[in-house]
Amino acid sequence: MRVAYVGLGIMGRGMVGNLIRAGHDVTVFNRTAERAAPFRAMGARVAASPAAAAAGAEVIGLCVTDGAAVAAVLQGEGGLLGALRPGQFVVDHSTISPADTVAFARQVADNGAAWCDAPVTGGDRGAREGTLTIMVGGEADAFARLEPYLQAMGRTIVHVGAVGQGQVVKLVNNFIGGVAMVGAAEGLLIGLSAGVPLDRIMAVCTAGSANSASLQLLADRLARADVLPGFSLSNRLKDMDLAMDAARRQGLALPLGALTAELFRERAGAGEGDLDQSVVARRYPGLFGDGGPART
Amino acid sequence: MRVAYVGLGIMGRGMVGNLIRAGHDVTVFNRTAERAAPFRAMGARVAASPAAAAAGAEVIGLCVTDGAAVAAVLQGEGGLLGALRPGQFVVDHSTISPADTVAFARQVADNGAAWCDAPVTGGDRGAREGTLTIMVGGEADAFARLEPYLQAMGRTIVHVGAVGQGQVVKLVNNFIGGVAMVGAAEGLLIGLSAGVPLDRIMAVCTAGSANSASLQLLADRLARADVLPGFSLSNRLKDMDLAMDAARRQGLALPLGALTAELFRERAGAGEGDLDQSVVARRYPGLFGDGGPART
Repeated sequence: MRVAYVGLGIMGRGMVGNLIRAGHDVTVFNRTAERAAPFRAMGARVAASPAAAAAGAEVIGLCVTDGAAVAAVLQGEGGLLGALRPGQFVVDHSTISPADTVAFARQVADNGAAWCDAPVTGGDRGAREGTLTIMVGGEADAFARLEPYLQAMGRTIVHVGAVGQGQVVKLVNNFIGGVAMVGAAEGLLIGLSAGVPLDRIMAVCTAGSANSASLQLLADRLARADVLPGFSLSNRLKDMDLAMDAARRQGLALPLGALTAELFRERAGAGEGDLDQSVVARRYPGLFGDGGPART
Repeated sequence: MRVAYVGLGIMGRGMVGNLIRAGHDVTVFNRTAERAAPFRAMGARVAASPAAAAAGAEVIGLCVTDGAAVAAVLQGEGGLLGALRPGQFVVDHSTISPADTVAFARQVADNGAAWCDAPVTGGDRGAREGTLTIMVGGEADAFARLEPYLQAMGRTIVHVGAVGQGQVVKLVNNFIGGVAMVGAAEGLLIGLSAGVPLDRIMAVCTAGSANSASLQLLADRLARADVLPGFSLSNRLKDMDLAMDAARRQGLALPLGALTAELFRERAGAGEGDLDQSVVARRYPGLFGDGGPART
């Protein structure tokens, strides 16, 4: 397919590489232009604006930081709005709020184009290896048309519902993973403080009811004393806040989620937002990388 | 081996069945005598007291409700203390506090016998099928001697450390699983309330960073609207309280664990302690079995 792609961060770079390798005809745009250069060498065109990238494209993929960045791609100088044509699809891989998503989709529809929200999970590695999980909100016929595009980047591709519901499911996934990560930190602390080695705890817990993706991520980080992202703490906090905001709009009271968000915020406030999300464990003295029980 | 086994609850019954099938020479005792009858038919002897069961046994397994029940088996009328002989092993499969465990082990040592704590995870199904995970606290040579006994009941058998540390790891496992279960309930509520079907959420979350044993357990319960235990809410609460008590003894502040324990206590206070632990989700209106979004 003829594809425009806007946003060459850690995730976008991996995804665009796979689109090119799958044989799609790709034009990229990135605010910081030098990030586009390697893709020119791979055969992609480089455009000077989102609007220029979109010209003639069937699919316009976005992967940017947050809702404000999506708004800038749509409404800013050289933005997509006004340049879109009927029959085009704007596919947003960013993680933003469901409410913003519905508003953006309406603006795009006013330009005659269609919107799908298609946030991803699987990290930078999944983006590089084309093994992402992609959750898609949008019309069924749009999802069907986009399959060759999505298949190039993901392994598990799920049409979850209407526009905005892709973002809802992304927030659900990240909310559940966030609570589980802090719960794992507190639980491991009980065992490590009692003198049980991490590998013995994990031999049991990965075979037991404690097992989770978050537990395994955290234990791996503790064992390697590795704090480089991965998935940054500030992005984790952003997603917890988006999930809690979505919950509040529905009138839902979620005490465990509210507390978890504040525990991540505490570490962000301590200046650790650019480190891996797992440094939330540093709020528990001795657990992570300061000579405490995780070293035993 | 020559085995005595005290406690024929849901877990004990499955475990004794596998001991007999593995060819061990088994004598059972249970406070409610009729529960022993099926095992007589399978070739086991039935004793009139823990002390009588223990006569001549190499291993005396216990699987009872709580620390008070273990104390009764040791110290009550016809109890083990006084009847134990040097060379015997008392192996406690109950889930009790690490502190109580160390005290019981000392009493048993005063009788010349050795103690191992060997709590299990894997549920009634794991007990029946011999696929339990067993975490063992005790001396290395005791662990080695007990292998034929433990292998008859479990698939993953881990020597985690000294006496008491088996219980520590059990509490760590159940603590982490308990927090993850309530986090999963809150997260699923966000998605279901926004109108996304449970099977679509799970298609994403089981392939994403949300994936956990607790999430899968809860989603299965919601899909089947099944509230029969399984693992009862009052046992889940007991284990959360034991874990928090162990944490407090070490001076650890665990905010997420403290809140999670209170959320389970709330449902126990609502008279749901005998139902499956997953009914903690009922505190979130509409989530579980009352015509709310889980039915969509």
